[in-house]
Amino acid sequence: MYTYDYLFDFTKSVFLKMGCSEHDSDVIAEVFLAAEMRDQASHGMIRIKDYYELWRAGRINVNPDVRIVHESPSTAVVDGDNAVGMVTARKSMETAIAKAEKAGTGWVAARNSNHFGIAGYYAMMALKHDMIGICLTNANPLVAPTFSISRMMGTNPIAVAIPAGSQPPFIADFATTPIARGKLAVAEKKGEKVALGFVQDKTGIPSDDPTILKRGGSMLTLGGDRLHGSHKGYCLSAIVDIFSAVFSGANFGPFVPPSVAYLPLLEKKVGEGTGHFFGAMRIDAFQPANHFKAKMDEWITTFRTAEPAEGQERVLIPGDPEREAESRIRREGIKLVPAIKDDLVAIARELDIKFDQF
Amino acid sequence: MYTYDYLFDFTKSVFLKMGCSEHDSDVIAEVFLAAEMRDQASHGMIRIKDYYELWRAGRINVNPDVRIVHESPSTAVVDGDNAVGMVTARKSMETAIAKAEKAGTGWVAARNSNHFGIAGYYAMMALKHDMIGICLTNANPLVAPTFSISRMMGTNPIAVAIPAGSQPPFIADFATTPIARGKLAVAEKKGEKVALGFVQDKTGIPSDDPTILKRGGSMLTLGGDRLHGSHKGYCLSAIVDIFSAVFSGANFGPFVPPSVAYLPLLEKKVGEGTGHFFGAMRIDAFQPANHFKAKMDEWITTFRTAEPAEGQERVLIPGDPEREAESRIRREGIKLVPAIKDDLVAIARELDIKFDQF
Repeated sequence: MYTYDYLFDFTKSVFLKMGCSEHDSDVIAEVFLAAEMRDQASHGMIRIKDYYELWRAGRINVNPDVRIVHESPSTAVVDGDNAVGMVTARKSMETAIAKAEKAGTGWVAARNSNHFGIAGYYAMMALKHDMIGICLTNANPLVAPTFSISRMMGTNPIAVAIPAGSQPPFIADFATTPIARGKLAVAEKKGEKVALGFVQDKTGIPSDDPTILKRGGSMLTLGGDRLHGSHKGYCLSAIVDIFSAVFSGANFGPFVPPSVAYLPLLEKKVGEGTGHFFGAMRIDAFQPANHFKAKMDEWITTFRTAEPAEGQERVLIPGDPEREAESRIRREGIKLVPAIKDDLVAIARELDIKFDQF
Repeated sequence: MYTYDYLFDFTKSVFLKMGCSEHDSDVIAEVFLAAEMRDQASHGMIRIKDYYELWRAGRINVNPDVRIVHESPSTAVVDGDNAVGMVTARKSMETAIAKAEKAGTGWVAARNSNHFGIAGYYAMMALKHDMIGICLTNANPLVAPTFSISRMMGTNPIAVAIPAGSQPPFIADFATTPIARGKLAVAEKKGEKVALGFVQDKTGIPSDDPTILKRGGSMLTLGGDRLHGSHKGYCLSAIVDIFSAVFSGANFGPFVPPSVAYLPLLEKKVGEGTGHFFGAMRIDAFQPANHFKAKMDEWITTFRTAEPAEGQERVLIPGDPEREAESRIRREGIKLVPAIKDDLVAIARELDIKFDQF
């Protein structure tokens, strides 16, 4: 088991060694560790290798000039200058919050960025300012629109964080597919099949094979099939893509660049890098903040006391599972599987830093 | 078959007779007819009776003072004064557009409103201003959160309209449940079962019985069950509810008042009336408008040329089915089923206006 501090310091030193600034390395480590603490390990330490190899391939900029290139009172476009995604994203969300301070709301589209970790981290930045935070991003194409077999969209997540009063905040953070990409990899490693409704084969027939993406298959949108509303998942994913890429001038849909170095850059570009979208909304731009937060407490307690179905213990509020995971992981420590530890040992050796195997 | 103009004039005269102003009656008729033309008949002429009976029961205000009660540069809260929903909604979206003209974006939460027809109508109002339009609303509770059997939420729709250049606009307008409430009623009338994944019985067991809501059942959120992502549909529906009701001061979740007079008003109130939420985003607050629209054309043509699955002819862009329906209905006319015509004849008689049975 590792402590938060140990892995934070290690992650920070990896990015410092790669040439990132003190500030940027702090931000990057914080987002990686937020993923581990919230039990979203698929976006945590396992991904350090991807960033390291992008850097080794010269495909990421560790000394970026992340800057605002266009703005209005409530909006801005940020160019990430091919930075590590967390650096672009943090600056963009800070900009959205600053816009909201003055205009009531702030909306920032970012281009020329890279994979930024968990979307929820940026949405949650708004909470301490008594604002609602929103974060969207597009991602590598793996998902087919309804009626199609072409991989046109990423798992394009939506994160929304809403402050409450005495209750913990409402935090939704979800891919616009039935499951995250990482769950297919887990099933594959265990040699298991998956339920129908997640993936299809190269002709469009529903499949239970988690390895089908390697043979021309694709992921399905939330809803699974047309009868069960997959066209609504397609709409959501498309909206995330358009807000992230068309507002910002990033690559959209099938042109989003890979977030791993073992896949080549695509031949065709329709914009710059990966795109994100951020929103910050001052709750007192609508209601006195104390009133809003008291009403959110009432909303949360109302939904928490909904009657559970037979066999269920309780009804959850978005954010409950991750908060409970964080409390457990803070107590017990962070567990890394051997394969990840091996990767981190190898990176540590190459960068001449220390990584212990606990 | 009826023409657009015939039903527009009839609808307008119904609301004039009820005491609505010339302006409000025009707006209301326009929204009703937009539903008919877009083949969303469940929100069209069939609902005139509901409004008429709410009015007869003294539960709707035909002379409302719809007004802004709070604002910031990019936001406002509108009190609908218990108006017909279309009147509150149209004024709220006009306010969002006016805010966006100055601040880049405009966001309006509305309370003390009623059922407003189709959400897509208000989102589409933004298009001619070269803005993206967004519209959300909460609704009568019929839907259970994941793991629950309590009806806590409406079918809470999301509408987003995005302008393009030479291509038609991208228009998404969908309930956050796998199917709309109206589809259950259609199956019931035909004596048919429905697919699993839409409704559950009063203990939480999935059901194929479209009449199950009459015996303690509830609708499921988009995703259908936890394995297939129903918690994501729950998040979406909850976000729509919070934006519509907590931002505005309307009733949230299980407290949203019924939109029909045959159901009594609820005993408990947590706010005023039904709530909506509107957004308008100037595309040139992010990119030069011509550039944005050219990129949307490229997005649309890219997705339109995605490869269809076996047995499918083509891949659709959100908005295609409704636009094609509109073109057909404009050519062929609007068909009303006998039961609806009978209702309208009865209303016409009571209000001393004319309605012909074509």
